Amino acid sequence: MKIDQLINEIRKKQSFLCIGLDVDLNKIPKHLLNEDDPIFAFNKAIIDATHHLCVAYKPNTAFYEAYGIKGWQALERTISYLNKEYPEIYTIADAKRGDIGNTSTMYAKAFFEDLGFDSVTVAPYMGKDSVEPFLAFKDKHTILLALTSNQGAFDFQTKSLDGLELYKHVLQTSITWKNAQNLMYVIGATKAEYLSEIRQIIPDNFLLVPGVGAQGGNLQEVCKYGMTENVGLLINSSRGIIYASQEKDFAQSAARKAEELQQQMHLVLSK
Amino acid sequence: MKIDQLINEIRKKQSFLCIGLDVDLNKIPKHLLNEDDPIFAFNKAIIDATHHLCVAYKPNTAFYEAYGIKGWQALERTISYLNKEYPEIYTIADAKRGDIGNTSTMYAKAFFEDLGFDSVTVAPYMGKDSVEPFLAFKDKHTILLALTSNQGAFDFQTKSLDGLELYKHVLQTSITWKNAQNLMYVIGATKAEYLSEIRQIIPDNFLLVPGVGAQGGNLQEVCKYGMTENVGLLINSSRGIIYASQEKDFAQSAARKAEELQQQMHLVLSK
Repeated sequence: MKIDQLINEIRKKQSFLCIGLDVDLNKIPKHLLNEDDPIFAFNKAIIDATHHLCVAYKPNTAFYEAYGIKGWQALERTISYLNKEYPEIYTIADAKRGDIGNTSTMYAKAFFEDLGFDSVTVAPYMGKDSVEPFLAFKDKHTILLALTSNQGAFDFQTKSLDGLELYKHVLQTSITWKNAQNLMYVIGATKAEYLSEIRQIIPDNFLLVPGVGAQGGNLQEVCKYGMTENVGLLINSSRGIIYASQEKDFAQSAARKAEELQQQMHLVLSK
Repeated sequence: MKIDQLINEIRKKQSFLCIGLDVDLNKIPKHLLNEDDPIFAFNKAIIDATHHLCVAYKPNTAFYEAYGIKGWQALERTISYLNKEYPEIYTIADAKRGDIGNTSTMYAKAFFEDLGFDSVTVAPYMGKDSVEPFLAFKDKHTILLALTSNQGAFDFQTKSLDGLELYKHVLQTSITWKNAQNLMYVIGATKAEYLSEIRQIIPDNFLLVPGVGAQGGNLQEVCKYGMTENVGLLINSSRGIIYASQEKDFAQSAARKAEELQQQMHLVLSK
């Protein structure tokens, strides 16, 4: 998907919400466990109930790999369903991959071509030649981990590296890479105060912001410091939406939670 | 597998060779493409021909994900075959995973419990709470990326972070984590001269060393600076062994290449 299509969709829906499809069979409504493919049944219901309130879905691949072949089948069915029924939706494979050059190309093909995702999250530790193979795909985005929302982010990411915090070094270095226009970045909402400095380095790139809701991040703070003329933000919520209820009305409950966030986003966009 | 079993196996076979099972359908002998599961057929032939010469196999998950469901089935069949037929062999899922806590647990379960690997490679960028979920598994190892064998390693890993190179910071910090006795590290063979300083920080941990052969690393150099009393090294070779020939005798050719390395290792161990 071209970035303009995503921006148009954000304007139209008055939403920059991304819903994380992190399906845990211990948390979904019990009646779904009788389905042939409970993971896909859950995703389909959530998607059908929320697609008008969000612009993106983000399955975290860990939750699918944990169920082996069946998990991968559910992931394939989910992305196929999205691409067929809701082609206007932006899709993110939250895979946090990254390997040496020819191997990164294999991952990129798997997520961009075979599965048909619009974007994939990638870890920066191995540097340029581990990321550029992802960037080479036209109209696909590589979402680089910069500053994550977990406590462990302070172990290395915020440490000073030759006088600059590691995550800023990742930002500054990555924008010099080939096809850097295809980069987005993961910036945790729990660290909204970092966003104004981040925007000095990457004024325009889209940021995927996890950690609003369950992890304690604040939407208004994130928008205040991180929003650009083209919005430039995708705010992700996973558990807070998809596990709003474990009863038969789970999809409607999820839609209500999504609508709460969408309404807050509408307010921000109307200002 | 307990580390003592691995060490015993190394002594017995006079080998600390790990063979990378990075199967690319464009590179395997053409006659295998008629098989129901060409990837598994290739792996089985390579394993049957080389298992007495090596102590570990390391499938890189990218090469399996690239083939979707069929790739995952081939990965499952490969690890099942290894665990059933050659339980003395140490197995490494080269997956380079890492995510926030509960998500890392999902990855750990997938690789350690469902698939039954002895170890998995993990990226350190997200810090302690992204790695400790892997370390919690008894008699399983977490192989943390420290200094990789690619050019991009110089983008961040070797940069000075508060006065110490990032990869050394990763080593020093990680050994303070809970269950750190379950850590091994990836150290590229192309940077053998770093090994003596690395051994000052982690004198005993096993190192998984890619980059001997195709990537230009030198076995003698790696052993000179990196070997410990308990050997402490797993030297990986992938393409140099498994693609030694594309003819019908490919498995025998692979065995000859593996034996060349095993003989060099025998010499080193006999000193």
